Amino acid sequence: MAYDPNNIFAKILRGEIPCEKLYEDDETFVFMDIMPRADGHCLVIPKTPCRNMLDASDAQLAACLRTVRKMGHAVMKGLGAEGVTVQQFNEAVGGQEVFHLHYHILPRHDGVRLRPPGKMEDQAVIKEIAAKIRAGLDG
Amino acid sequence: MAYDPNNIFAKILRGEIPCEKLYEDDETFVFMDIMPRADGHCLVIPKTPCRNMLDASDAQLAACLRTVRKMGHAVMKGLGAEGVTVQQFNEAVGGQEVFHLHYHILPRHDGVRLRPPGKMEDQAVIKEIAAKIRAGLDG
Repeated sequence: MAYDPNNIFAKILRGEIPCEKLYEDDETFVFMDIMPRADGHCLVIPKTPCRNMLDASDAQLAACLRTVRKMGHAVMKGLGAEGVTVQQFNEAVGGQEVFHLHYHILPRHDGVRLRPPGKMEDQAVIKEIAAKIRAGLDG
Repeated sequence: MAYDPNNIFAKILRGEIPCEKLYEDDETFVFMDIMPRADGHCLVIPKTPCRNMLDASDAQLAACLRTVRKMGHAVMKGLGAEGVTVQQFNEAVGGQEVFHLHYHILPRHDGVRLRPPGKMEDQAVIKEIAAKIRAGLDG
């Protein structure tokens, strides 16, 4: 299927929809998930279009994974996370809801289960956690 | 923490423990999960040591993701999957059980939920599904 340039993450990349940005480099962009399944749940996306990993280029995947690793370290340091769960969904049946490749970074703490999906978090809480993650970013 | 060269995936790579192999190239190795959460659940690992993505090199991540994408296409084609869920766990609190980087490929079909973890599948069933995935591999 063709990439839809009006998906919500494409709009975020174009600045047409606000987001709580954590990090960006030439190839990738990272922002907070507004319906977090764990405190600090954030999303890594490529700046260039692809629906998901099935049509992603080697360069898009490599760039995303460098940033996924970077954000993993940032949530360990900034939030004191003891582990990180990474999820990536392909096609609706695979769990995908927005059709622009994205990696879910889920910071984990001992004994804390992932929350069910679909509940919007308070924006002030998201901003507070985002500041801690930024403080955990290297360099 | 240091990489333990006696983890079960290192033993599989050295041929000390059998597995149902699906694919390998110079950098990566793919085999069936013996406790599948979906039919065709398989694991992509780098051939070189790292505990998880947090200590993985750019090259290890890039190679794994090329193979993850390849296996995604293989399960879509070979098993008629309509989607693919990719999971990758870091540290025990993040859900990791074997401390050699691995990506879970979970083929998805409409209306079929992931099964709970921990149930060993019959070896004959695994072999039958593995043959279909191999038939779905390109080239």
